[in-house]
Amino acid sequence: MATLIEYQDASPEVRAVYDDIMATRHTDWINNFWKALARDPATLRRTWEGIKQIMAPGALDALTKEMLYVAVSATTQCGYCVASHTAAARKAGMTDAMFAELMAVVGMANQTNRLAAGYQVEIDEAFKV
Amino acid sequence: MATLIEYQDASPEVRAVYDDIMATRHTDWINNFWKALARDPATLRRTWEGIKQIMAPGALDALTKEMLYVAVSATTQCGYCVASHTAAARKAGMTDAMFAELMAVVGMANQTNRLAAGYQVEIDEAFKV
Amino acid sequence: MATLIEYQDASPEVRAVYDDIMATRHTDWINNFWKALARDPATLRRTWEGIKQIMAPGALDALTKEMLYVAVSATTQCGYCVASHTAAARKAGMTDAMFAELMAVVGMANQTNRLAAGYQVEIDEAFKV
Amino acid sequence: MATLIEYQDASPEVRAVYDDIMATRHTDWINNFWKALARDPATLRRTWEGIKQIMAPGALDALTKEMLYVAVSATTQCGYCVASHTAAARKAGMTDAMFAELMAVVGMANQTNRLAAGYQVEIDEAFKV
Amino acid sequence: MATLIEYQDASPEVRAVYDDIMATRHTDWINNFWKALARDPATLRRTWEGIKQIMAPGALDALTKEMLYVAVSATTQCGYCVASHTAAARKAGMTDAMFAELMAVVGMANQTNRLAAGYQVEIDEAFKV
Amino acid sequence: MATLIEYQDASPEVRAVYDDIMATRHTDWINNFWKALARDPATLRRTWEGIKQIMAPGALDALTKEMLYVAVSATTQCGYCVASHTAAARKAGMTDAMFAELMAVVGMANQTNRLAAGYQVEIDEAFKV
Repeated sequence: MATLIEYQDASPEVRAVYDDIMATRHTDWINNFWKALARDPATLRRTWEGIKQIMAPGALDALTKEMLYVAVSATTQCGYCVASHTAAARKAGMTDAMFAELMAVVGMANQTNRLAAGYQVEIDEAFKV
Repeated sequence: MATLIEYQDASPEVRAVYDDIMATRHTDWINNFWKALARDPATLRRTWEGIKQIMAPGALDALTKEMLYVAVSATTQCGYCVASHTAAARKAGMTDAMFAELMAVVGMANQTNRLAAGYQVEIDEAFKV
Repeated sequence: MATLIEYQDASPEVRAVYDDIMATRHTDWINNFWKALARDPATLRRTWEGIKQIMAPGALDALTKEMLYVAVSATTQCGYCVASHTAAARKAGMTDAMFAELMAVVGMANQTNRLAAGYQVEIDEAFKV
Repeated sequence: MATLIEYQDASPEVRAVYDDIMATRHTDWINNFWKALARDPATLRRTWEGIKQIMAPGALDALTKEMLYVAVSATTQCGYCVASHTAAARKAGMTDAMFAELMAVVGMANQTNRLAAGYQVEIDEAFKV
Repeated sequence: MATLIEYQDASPEVRAVYDDIMATRHTDWINNFWKALARDPATLRRTWEGIKQIMAPGALDALTKEMLYVAVSATTQCGYCVASHTAAARKAGMTDAMFAELMAVVGMANQTNRLAAGYQVEIDEAFKV
Repeated sequence: MATLIEYQDASPEVRAVYDDIMATRHTDWINNFWKALARDPATLRRTWEGIKQIMAPGALDALTKEMLYVAVSATTQCGYCVASHTAAARKAGMTDAMFAELMAVVGMANQTNRLAAGYQVEIDEAFKV
């Protein structure tokens, strides 16, 4: 339902971001998320610059970062984000076994998050450092 | 506020779980989450057996799993879970730089999850595999 | 941190709601939630009228309704709501065994909710009735 | 998938609400949300009366209220609500530029909400008034 | 979009779980959730064993448990889970009137959860037991 | 519990951000959120630059933006964010009446978001533009 701005219809400002996305990702393709954000060039640029900075390998490798992204997206029930970042994680090397363990942790964390809330568990002094 | 069951007051069934937690984690200490769950020995055991199975190193290492746990817990705003699993991640080797990158990814993912929803972005065919 | 409006400081409009809360609940006490909402008499009244209508026994009994309230509140991590509605559920007859099962279902539902999202499970035709 | 109750099949009680919705909104059309709620006339009426009271211009104008509605709906990932209230906001005068800024704030707020949780930031004394 | 593992393609380990699901539920049919989880036999088994244990009648009956499941699933916006557990609740005896009251409570609880947060209501001493 | 970096202990890079925050906000005070983020100067700078850009008056005024921030924060149950952005909204001119209406909308939106999910309401064709 989103209005998508294709490359050929984009302003120079938007094209510059599209070009950088394709160059950074070594692809000739732009996914719908960016084409939708392009309705607001300022948010398109700010979001892309943030993603580019944050998702680059650093103290954590690119695969770990993509799996963290999937963990958040499954938790918030963002269908688009689960689909796109699961694809990105696979491209970054996530195997079936890794995906299975990722999902198991996400499921368990969501479970114990609610048990902690429901049982009204107070934070241990040892964790308050 | 939670009613906590201490080791000396615990039934043999609960003590067996506490013993296994301490042995598995190489510690002599039980944190409040388990002492609260001990009000329901069946859930205590099932949750602990699940955690033990899921958090053991496999295709993903223990540190990655703890960071995924923190990512979920910060997303759902579970204060107890952020505190306890950040401590666990540190114990498993998470450095300040790793924590900083973990948080940056979690923040960005929560942001783009809502941009995808708000812009009503449809899943690309390429992601529907 | 909320500004609380006590009975003696309340306007006649607010007092009328307080009186109805106490009469309906057979108590001489108003909890903080209502004293905070009293800053906006329209919302105080609308919320109380809604609660009174919805929480009255009908096709579901009062205890089941309070447990549903706790299930939602633990899921959204609302500490106040977990505390107040767990107390209300206990008053309505929730036993320790019932609480334990309630929490087990809430935890499991939050887990499988995320597995369904992460595995991108499509709704079965049989469920589309 | 929802069972929808059309005007011609509706009870007088439901028709009265439909009539009021159409009169209040200066339209001859009822959207699916109300047709689904009509399965429970009490909830249909209570929800409509609440919406009518709350969304009417007051200290905040109708457009601001619709944008707040969109902010909540994008945060909770309610696809239906994003679609319907974005349409309502547009009808109330939301421009492309306003939508872009609305989304930017929603995205940023969801990001910093999780940074605050993940960094375990305590509330400043100055905010405890 | 999920890869689904059908009975005829399943390993003996997965078939054993499918057989137990069908026997326990008195059906000859497996829904998509389990066919998707079957990609990870360990999670399939652990999740099924947990569900089987938790959802069995105990201090709470099966219908109440299914309604709690629906309450959580509507709160987290899990479309699959709402569809599947609403169907399960209907099968367990949920009438239209019960569904209507269930939804009314879920809606109200989500509303007051946010009023409590927004008004920054502190937990009453009386609830800290 | 967060480690806070005070101005006198901050690196020149962090001090530069603190100085810009104080200059932009016409204050001599830094709230805990920034002092916690300062553990990661890159995230401190990126987040501040984003906030500064997004929260500046544009098509929406500063007060509307702060109220949108509060709406998101109450929805996600972020106590810190509710406290800090409610204070900011008050500083930007939010009256008691405006706050009351803001909260009423946030509560109602969270309610109908779940009714839409629970009743499985499909998006009207008219909203798919």
